[in-house]
Amino acid sequence: MSPSNFIFEQVTIVGTGLMGGSMGMDIRARGLAREVVGVGRRQISIDRALDAGACDTATLDTEEGVAGADLVVLATPIGALPDVLPPVVEAADPGCLLTDVASSKRNVIEHARAAMSGRDDLHYLSTHPMAGSEKTGPTAARKGLFEDCICIFTPLQKTPDQPVSRLRELWEALGAEVVDMAPDRHDRLVARISHVPHLVAAALVESSERNDLWYAGGGLMDTTRVASSDPELWCDIYESNREEVCRALDEHISLMRRLREMVDDGNFEDLHKLLDRARRKRDELMAERADFNRKRTEGC
Amino acid sequence: MSPSNFIFEQVTIVGTGLMGGSMGMDIRARGLAREVVGVGRRQISIDRALDAGACDTATLDTEEGVAGADLVVLATPIGALPDVLPPVVEAADPGCLLTDVASSKRNVIEHARAAMSGRDDLHYLSTHPMAGSEKTGPTAARKGLFEDCICIFTPLQKTPDQPVSRLRELWEALGAEVVDMAPDRHDRLVARISHVPHLVAAALVESSERNDLWYAGGGLMDTTRVASSDPELWCDIYESNREEVCRALDEHISLMRRLREMVDDGNFEDLHKLLDRARRKRDELMAERADFNRKRTEGC
Repeated sequence: MSPSNFIFEQVTIVGTGLMGGSMGMDIRARGLAREVVGVGRRQISIDRALDAGACDTATLDTEEGVAGADLVVLATPIGALPDVLPPVVEAADPGCLLTDVASSKRNVIEHARAAMSGRDDLHYLSTHPMAGSEKTGPTAARKGLFEDCICIFTPLQKTPDQPVSRLRELWEALGAEVVDMAPDRHDRLVARISHVPHLVAAALVESSERNDLWYAGGGLMDTTRVASSDPELWCDIYESNREEVCRALDEHISLMRRLREMVDDGNFEDLHKLLDRARRKRDELMAERADFNRKRTEGC
Repeated sequence: MSPSNFIFEQVTIVGTGLMGGSMGMDIRARGLAREVVGVGRRQISIDRALDAGACDTATLDTEEGVAGADLVVLATPIGALPDVLPPVVEAADPGCLLTDVASSKRNVIEHARAAMSGRDDLHYLSTHPMAGSEKTGPTAARKGLFEDCICIFTPLQKTPDQPVSRLRELWEALGAEVVDMAPDRHDRLVARISHVPHLVAAALVESSERNDLWYAGGGLMDTTRVASSDPELWCDIYESNREEVCRALDEHISLMRRLREMVDDGNFEDLHKLLDRARRKRDELMAERADFNRKRTEGC
């Protein structure tokens, strides 16, 4: 394959866990970059990433790993970004594009802006691929994780078109649908469709006795699946999106109070309307997504 | 097969939807009764039940369907039971065992008691197989639905041992683990592990804009799967378990307020503890269940 077929020459992935490791696997398997370099904090993590085929080479040394890269993917937990960003920025070659895959944006972009000050020769584009698993770490990484997912791009006004379109090309080659969004809108959105649902799942597990959960059917196990996620990662996420999470929690609590009132008052007409609306909304969405994904696959 | 191999001679299933239809299929496929008779309200329902193999014969006439049965399974929606019970009781042969598979117990048992007054020659045993699907109706019925599920029995003091043990034998032959429980304890339990989780799932769908849900990953689709259930059936369930559902909703709302306070105060130490506890509880439970089911399968 000639060099011009690669989207990037050297992609360095800092943090080769579920997200970073899965990206590395597909970038390599699909020939999207000449080389994928993994950077980890612990020898065992980078050994696992190499074993899993998530990178061609791996190092514990950020400077060494970042040098020569035209794309650096920051795929550490959000809480590690403030510490990880400065050495990455320092080691990055001129013209390098930096990106992250974090679950909150406003806060992360602020950290990136601060770390990038004085390096106008670098570009930054924060993204959020809406894919994942309740499992974490390099052993959870897998090929095809981003197939049919949506990847939200939150470009800054000053990010030039060329690196943005290359990163878009990469994500599309990973199977994602790229959508642009303002960081504030992103944070408001994910508070509602991801962060609060996770807290609710944890609450449902917390509020039942262990022995009682034993009786639960498959329904509750699905409802609470995300409660098996890493608490560390999630605390980071809540901390970085605190304001919107609180707002979305207020809305959830107020809606649950309305539902309680309907049940208590025997107002099953309104309850029926609400349940029916929710069912229709979800069913239509599932059908639309299936249709959309089918068309995408056929279009390929 | 000689008659003595059957657990029941004639099982009549009133309401051959998801639960009743699935029972009928397995009772027939596993040779657990000489004959399965379906009773439905509409011609199309009983035609579908016959097509699906859920019964040997089917009728719209309750009296005709119930005559000759030694087991009648009431598998209609809870809301229909008050209307369905009297004609069933009237048509039942002496010695017949009546059972239901409803999702709430205290209320259903009260209705059954009222309908059975004056028929001391009949037996009643209310059960709740903890299996199901967000889909309903005869087309959703399937073989093996009850494999590895728990079936809660709420026997009354006056129910004699013999019919109870035969019904237990039937449920075990359908693949279920039978557990005895007082009706009050059952209703408290399912409010927490089933009824409130369903309301929460509907609330999560309701509180997001349709276009916003489009961005959700697989996590939210799992969390909200039960929100695609039939609103009619669920309103019946909430109505019949109103008191416990309200109590469980109060607990959920109060826990969500505590979580909101933790996020707002930046108290991520307590939040981490709670998330970690929920994760462990769920993971241990999943492992235990897998182990339990493996042992059961090996024991067969």
